[in-house]
Amino acid sequence: MITFRRAQASDLPDIVAMLADDPLGAGREDASVPLARGYVDAFDAIDADPNQLLAVAVDGGEVIGTLQITFLAGLSRKGAWGGQIEAVRVASHRRSGGIGRLMFEWAIAQCRARGCGRVQITTDKGRADAHRFYESLGFTGNHLGYKKTL
Amino acid sequence: MITFRRAQASDLPDIVAMLADDPLGAGREDASVPLARGYVDAFDAIDADPNQLLAVAVDGGEVIGTLQITFLAGLSRKGAWGGQIEAVRVASHRRSGGIGRLMFEWAIAQCRARGCGRVQITTDKGRADAHRFYESLGFTGNHLGYKKTL
Repeated sequence: MITFRRAQASDLPDIVAMLADDPLGAGREDASVPLARGYVDAFDAIDADPNQLLAVAVDGGEVIGTLQITFLAGLSRKGAWGGQIEAVRVASHRRSGGIGRLMFEWAIAQCRARGCGRVQITTDKGRADAHRFYESLGFTGNHLGYKKTL
Repeated sequence: MITFRRAQASDLPDIVAMLADDPLGAGREDASVPLARGYVDAFDAIDADPNQLLAVAVDGGEVIGTLQITFLAGLSRKGAWGGQIEAVRVASHRRSGGIGRLMFEWAIAQCRARGCGRVQITTDKGRADAHRFYESLGFTGNHLGYKKTL
């Protein structure tokens, strides 16, 4: 029985471990405990922001997944709110078991409950498996995502 | 002399007029005054949020451009903040005069001043002119942006 809830400070080491356990994350995260100050500060900023929802998926008390939703106010479309889903991870020993789909369905429901008119995500251009997954969830990929490192 | 500042409630009719004056916006916005309640509510939500910056470009007291920056707290990259730029518009009679570039340079500087480690935008896949523009500003387009209407 997998459940979802808002992340608590005590979940932070598990969440950071999942962020680090991924080809990109391995090179840019540091899951050693005590956690680097940046993680704790970021958690506090997210937790204090009513338009941010950092969540965990839990199975029998074990944290097995995480994602972050940002609720975005904007003027476009007559002031419609949008939801943005980022930093989605499933614990490596639980991948390919349909948990990612449950997490997205839960996240989309959170966006709907907040009155969002749309949900958006970005994903690497080369990840054809992820593209099929998002399309199966009803997303359409008509945009390019640009990033610039400062 | 073009200057930039945080948008005020009195700028809202000018901003919505720019959102509506564009092929996509024409079909989904309503610039009639008094403005629809959704715009006013969205402005209030943006204005009250310390992680949102709705800005206008002004020339001689006239509002000639608008953009919105969202400052995003996140755990990834050891808790680095990100900046997201959206809803960028230049008044139709001032397009092709380099104002868009000034606006992006100003927005990127705002992100840097807030300590963001990256800036992100999404744009329609088919807009080759926009892609060249973002690349000229140092952005790389390695992501696909997916959206789902709720």
